[in-house]
Amino acid sequence: MFDIKIKPDALRRMAGAVSILVDEANFHLGPAGIVLRAVDPAHVAMIDLNLNAKAFEKYEADDRYLGIDLGKISGFLRLAGPDSTIAARYDKNAHRLIINIGNIERRMAPLDTSTMTEPRIPSVELPAKVVLSGDELDQGIKAAEAVSDRVALTVDPQGFEMIAEGGTDVVNLRLPKDLLTDHQCSDTVRSLYSLPYFANMIRQAKPGQVTMHLGTDCPLRVEFDIAGNDGHVMYMLAPRIESE
Amino acid sequence: MFDIKIKPDALRRMAGAVSILVDEANFHLGPAGIVLRAVDPAHVAMIDLNLNAKAFEKYEADDRYLGIDLGKISGFLRLAGPDSTIAARYDKNAHRLIINIGNIERRMAPLDTSTMTEPRIPSVELPAKVVLSGDELDQGIKAAEAVSDRVALTVDPQGFEMIAEGGTDVVNLRLPKDLLTDHQCSDTVRSLYSLPYFANMIRQAKPGQVTMHLGTDCPLRVEFDIAGNDGHVMYMLAPRIESE
Amino acid sequence: MFDIKIKPDALRRMAGAVSILVDEANFHLGPAGIVLRAVDPAHVAMIDLNLNAKAFEKYEADDRYLGIDLGKISGFLRLAGPDSTIAARYDKNAHRLIINIGNIERRMAPLDTSTMTEPRIPSVELPAKVVLSGDELDQGIKAAEAVSDRVALTVDPQGFEMIAEGGTDVVNLRLPKDLLTDHQCSDTVRSLYSLPYFANMIRQAKPGQVTMHLGTDCPLRVEFDIAGNDGHVMYMLAPRIESE
Repeated sequence: MFDIKIKPDALRRMAGAVSILVDEANFHLGPAGIVLRAVDPAHVAMIDLNLNAKAFEKYEADDRYLGIDLGKISGFLRLAGPDSTIAARYDKNAHRLIINIGNIERRMAPLDTSTMTEPRIPSVELPAKVVLSGDELDQGIKAAEAVSDRVALTVDPQGFEMIAEGGTDVVNLRLPKDLLTDHQCSDTVRSLYSLPYFANMIRQAKPGQVTMHLGTDCPLRVEFDIAGNDGHVMYMLAPRIESE
Repeated sequence: MFDIKIKPDALRRMAGAVSILVDEANFHLGPAGIVLRAVDPAHVAMIDLNLNAKAFEKYEADDRYLGIDLGKISGFLRLAGPDSTIAARYDKNAHRLIINIGNIERRMAPLDTSTMTEPRIPSVELPAKVVLSGDELDQGIKAAEAVSDRVALTVDPQGFEMIAEGGTDVVNLRLPKDLLTDHQCSDTVRSLYSLPYFANMIRQAKPGQVTMHLGTDCPLRVEFDIAGNDGHVMYMLAPRIESE
Repeated sequence: MFDIKIKPDALRRMAGAVSILVDEANFHLGPAGIVLRAVDPAHVAMIDLNLNAKAFEKYEADDRYLGIDLGKISGFLRLAGPDSTIAARYDKNAHRLIINIGNIERRMAPLDTSTMTEPRIPSVELPAKVVLSGDELDQGIKAAEAVSDRVALTVDPQGFEMIAEGGTDVVNLRLPKDLLTDHQCSDTVRSLYSLPYFANMIRQAKPGQVTMHLGTDCPLRVEFDIAGNDGHVMYMLAPRIESE
């Protein structure tokens, strides 16, 4: 049993958040909502996404996995106006996912998920935490993209800093702690990350607040809500080695 | 004698409707207005377009043919604001078509039309008819384009249906007769058509109502008005064979 | 010493006006403002630009030259909203130009200007002058671009005319003197110019008024203000030979 109704925006946020890492995903459906865990093909980043049953106008689901081609979903969602409602259900007998937008129906076979394994989320101790505006951070990211494809993130007791260096050019976004929504840091931490991955993650969080947990030469954890407070995205991004 | 003034929008609709089938067209000018009949190079589709003298702010024309490069006209029309007026005339002595937008004048030689013959419009008995919103139909077409380049159109006593199938994916737009502006059908009819041609035709009709006449394995007739009720476009589209 | 604050729009106008001719430029800073003179690599056109100290919210500068990569500046300026303020300063010890937009800082090394010489502005007697709307002229230029890459500019005692000819097509913008803001001409003058250069110059002047000084087979002088009346751009464009 899988029979739901939802506003297109919540579904777009979910599909967008996943599709920066994978083209195909194995969604875990259950009575309480939808969960997705996936690792990108290069094994650099990971997503753990939850969308609660409360995010839906109607939600009925038994426990099962459903393999989805995200490109097909995103393409079909483009047809939905802001006021329309998406209906989706799984026809077990025909082995088809059926999605309706207004009078248009799209039927598609779920993907074979026998080779798609659900990754384990590593538990890493990350001593520093900042909460800040996704828009402000994205402005800095755009400036950084002009000079490098790597970015160093630092949290110290005074605030947060992002630095990108390319040749003789340096781009720097410095946010002292009074410009941060939240800031927890006793000792300075610093790690280097792939800028394209980081940029994609932050752009999914926009325009809202984004929470980041950091350590020194540690994975980055990026978190934000979707669908009001009824959905949550957590990304992890592996650090890059300084001498690369 | 050919000396006219017209609002850019009416001219844009006319040029747009013709240019989905041909790049060059042999317009038949006459005292009552402009008529164009043309077949696309692949001989799959045909247009019969009328623009009455009443659609023009000024209209004076003797009976004659004028070969036009539609790309030149469309490009020049992009310079016209919504409130501007287009003036056009034919200078018989210089053998030039002269078009004015504001203080800008473009002179061009008419095309040699000696090899452009005006097609005969076939009279086909098409038993079913539907009238519906071009916008609604275009939404379904966009969904269909994601899965196939062919579309089956069905009219039955209960309503209208468009189906596109590609591999394990099916897109379906079903409009029961109470959602149709008009619906005439005693027996079910069904034909298969090229989706790119069909899509282009319906997009010319947007955002207004479009009338379609259908039969089984028959050409499709698509009709809509332009320039208020002072212009009319009729397309015919050959059916495709089911086993293709 | 170079330490300034300025609204992004004034800086964008300056960078835009220069970048149609050169990618890198050697700005002459001084207590009264910024001056730039440059010739394009093909030696077809020249710019003489002034931006007075009054155009800045803060302006402190000693006399010196600063070599700038205009692409870097333009890219960084895209991050600035209309209400933001750009701060820039030169750090003599680090030999770096430092630009700030909000909390984002970009540091870059000035270009080596040892091979960049400041051109001398030729003094040419140009007998005719017209002042007209940059928007109106640009509409004519767009029409001209469809038929040719050269344009003939004529000023006669009755007004201004721009003509482009390509094959059997002619595009013509005729502005009688009552449609010109200013018009000074005793004898008819006419010169031919490269349309891409001319188009780029006029588009930098938009949407304001543009002043042109012309002669027969003479360079064209195009002038307009930027930053209110606190900045001024003068372009010179070499004529093309009729028989080319």
